[in-house]
Amino acid sequence: MTVIAVDANGADLGPGEVAAAARLAAAAGVEVLLFGPADQLGPSGGGVEIVDAPRSIAKEENPARAVRTVPDASIVLAARAVGEGRAAALVCNGSTGTALVAAQLHIRRAHGIHRPALAITVPVPSHPVTVLDVGANPDVRVEYLVQFAFMGAAYASTVLGVERPRVGLLSNGIEPERGSQVVIEAHEALIARSRASDVLTFVGNIEGDGVLNGAADVVVTDGFTGNVALKLIEAVSQTMLHTIRDIANASTRGKLGGLLLSGGLRPFVEEIDPEGQGGAYLLGLRHLGVVAHGSFTRQGIAKAILRARRGVEEDVVGRTHSALEAAGALRRAGVPTAS
Amino acid sequence: MTVIAVDANGADLGPGEVAAAARLAAAAGVEVLLFGPADQLGPSGGGVEIVDAPRSIAKEENPARAVRTVPDASIVLAARAVGEGRAAALVCNGSTGTALVAAQLHIRRAHGIHRPALAITVPVPSHPVTVLDVGANPDVRVEYLVQFAFMGAAYASTVLGVERPRVGLLSNGIEPERGSQVVIEAHEALIARSRASDVLTFVGNIEGDGVLNGAADVVVTDGFTGNVALKLIEAVSQTMLHTIRDIANASTRGKLGGLLLSGGLRPFVEEIDPEGQGGAYLLGLRHLGVVAHGSFTRQGIAKAILRARRGVEEDVVGRTHSALEAAGALRRAGVPTAS
Repeated sequence: MTVIAVDANGADLGPGEVAAAARLAAAAGVEVLLFGPADQLGPSGGGVEIVDAPRSIAKEENPARAVRTVPDASIVLAARAVGEGRAAALVCNGSTGTALVAAQLHIRRAHGIHRPALAITVPVPSHPVTVLDVGANPDVRVEYLVQFAFMGAAYASTVLGVERPRVGLLSNGIEPERGSQVVIEAHEALIARSRASDVLTFVGNIEGDGVLNGAADVVVTDGFTGNVALKLIEAVSQTMLHTIRDIANASTRGKLGGLLLSGGLRPFVEEIDPEGQGGAYLLGLRHLGVVAHGSFTRQGIAKAILRARRGVEEDVVGRTHSALEAAGALRRAGVPTAS
Repeated sequence: MTVIAVDANGADLGPGEVAAAARLAAAAGVEVLLFGPADQLGPSGGGVEIVDAPRSIAKEENPARAVRTVPDASIVLAARAVGEGRAAALVCNGSTGTALVAAQLHIRRAHGIHRPALAITVPVPSHPVTVLDVGANPDVRVEYLVQFAFMGAAYASTVLGVERPRVGLLSNGIEPERGSQVVIEAHEALIARSRASDVLTFVGNIEGDGVLNGAADVVVTDGFTGNVALKLIEAVSQTMLHTIRDIANASTRGKLGGLLLSGGLRPFVEEIDPEGQGGAYLLGLRHLGVVAHGSFTRQGIAKAILRARRGVEEDVVGRTHSALEAAGALRRAGVPTAS
């Protein structure tokens, strides 16, 4: 059975909520190795094995230092369990920064990958879209963006079940000659690399509004722009929903209107709930990592664990490697990447 | 009286709509020099002087070539009227690309400015926020971002009446050490430059969601990220409104609910209508330029003309220069900017 290492620290609702999520996932057939304060996690059993690891570094301001100086932190122990083969994937909560450092150090970069990336599936109704990088690499090179395309496509096809994902390159214009210098060159490289590939279709540049209109299943960008874009999408949609709720609550007439609308709105509000997508995915490592949002409840965290299992069983790491190899986009051995 | 040069071509509703806008603005005390197909613009008079310039290059795919090869295009003649001192500012419609090229060639860069930028005021309810650059410079240097801060602040204070605008730097984290390399360095430079200035307050890095939460009056970024951000904000808010409308229209119950809510929603929908902000502003030239969105009606275009007048009367160009001089952020004479 697939074993997933889960860090119980970092969730806003506390380690108990993560333990509840682990039991939900175990009931669906996952074996969970759960690292956290044993006195808050309940007993081992039923597919959940508790490892007492009370120290949390989820709230540390300097993740790089915390991961290096607190070797018994729960996230470090969980990442090491994956790196040493005792678990097949990592699930943690809250801080993507800490997760990224711990995973890079203990799970390590996959063979031939320049840089790991952080991917998020944005719950656009009727056509979810996976955006990467959303924060791991504020500055990128052409070859990173090319690899992100194949990493994102492998994730979308294995974990989300999208057949031959359409991959777009985020830019400030749809024409190939629009964009920053690195994006213009990446566009050209992606045309060449995707020609040799049967795992993705490169649909060219897409603009900000194209992220939402179903033009692509995967959107590739640098970790600076991707992070800004993601936070904007969340903020605009949440602001709109709150504003409409406030307007509805401001008058009796509005309250009645809101009540009559709410039945129709509920499926939509649920569909755009980020919990449904399980969190952020760490791609480009030797094993998959998933970071559930700190605010998630047990349902969202359980979803993250099940997604991690699916990524393992569908071999997202192996398929990323094969696709990059077929496209000639693997980092060549002996050629170190300048940072 | 302030004379504004207006290009009648490029608006989706046609030159007649722009002529109507010019007359609305003239009624409010502006003198308009209107360039376009005279047979569609009506007679001169009442503050509007018609200049027959039927050729339009608003839809050309290659603005740089079109501006250079069609010297009698309406936008070129309008920009030249400003460059030659016959008008104090430029207003055009539709293509920011064409406007930018025509303005750079004929109005020219202001003394000491590295690069002109395109600014948009996003109609966030209760605290509009001006974002620049939203497309003129996909790649930037530190010194461009520093100048954008002062250009945006001068615009916000003169045209929008914001006293000592709070300027934020868009990044993928609020900590000073977060961001791309150029953003990290710009953060440092902005702290130093703003210390000497009494025209703006630098509030540090802001993230994507910070654009909407009132943390800053002006948000500085490169033209790549700014363009993506702007199109995302528009797309998410419009998608949300359309989805809610569709849900309301899908059932009798929903229709009634929508009807009861619509009175309360109307002011909000009007407040986030981009027409209310007059369009995109070309900053950093010897004279102000405004590009109304192609979809605008006469009200939005008239607003653009009145905003241009205000920019002239409040001396946005002179005040930008003084602020940059006081902050020691002018481009030094004789030191050309590498491109």
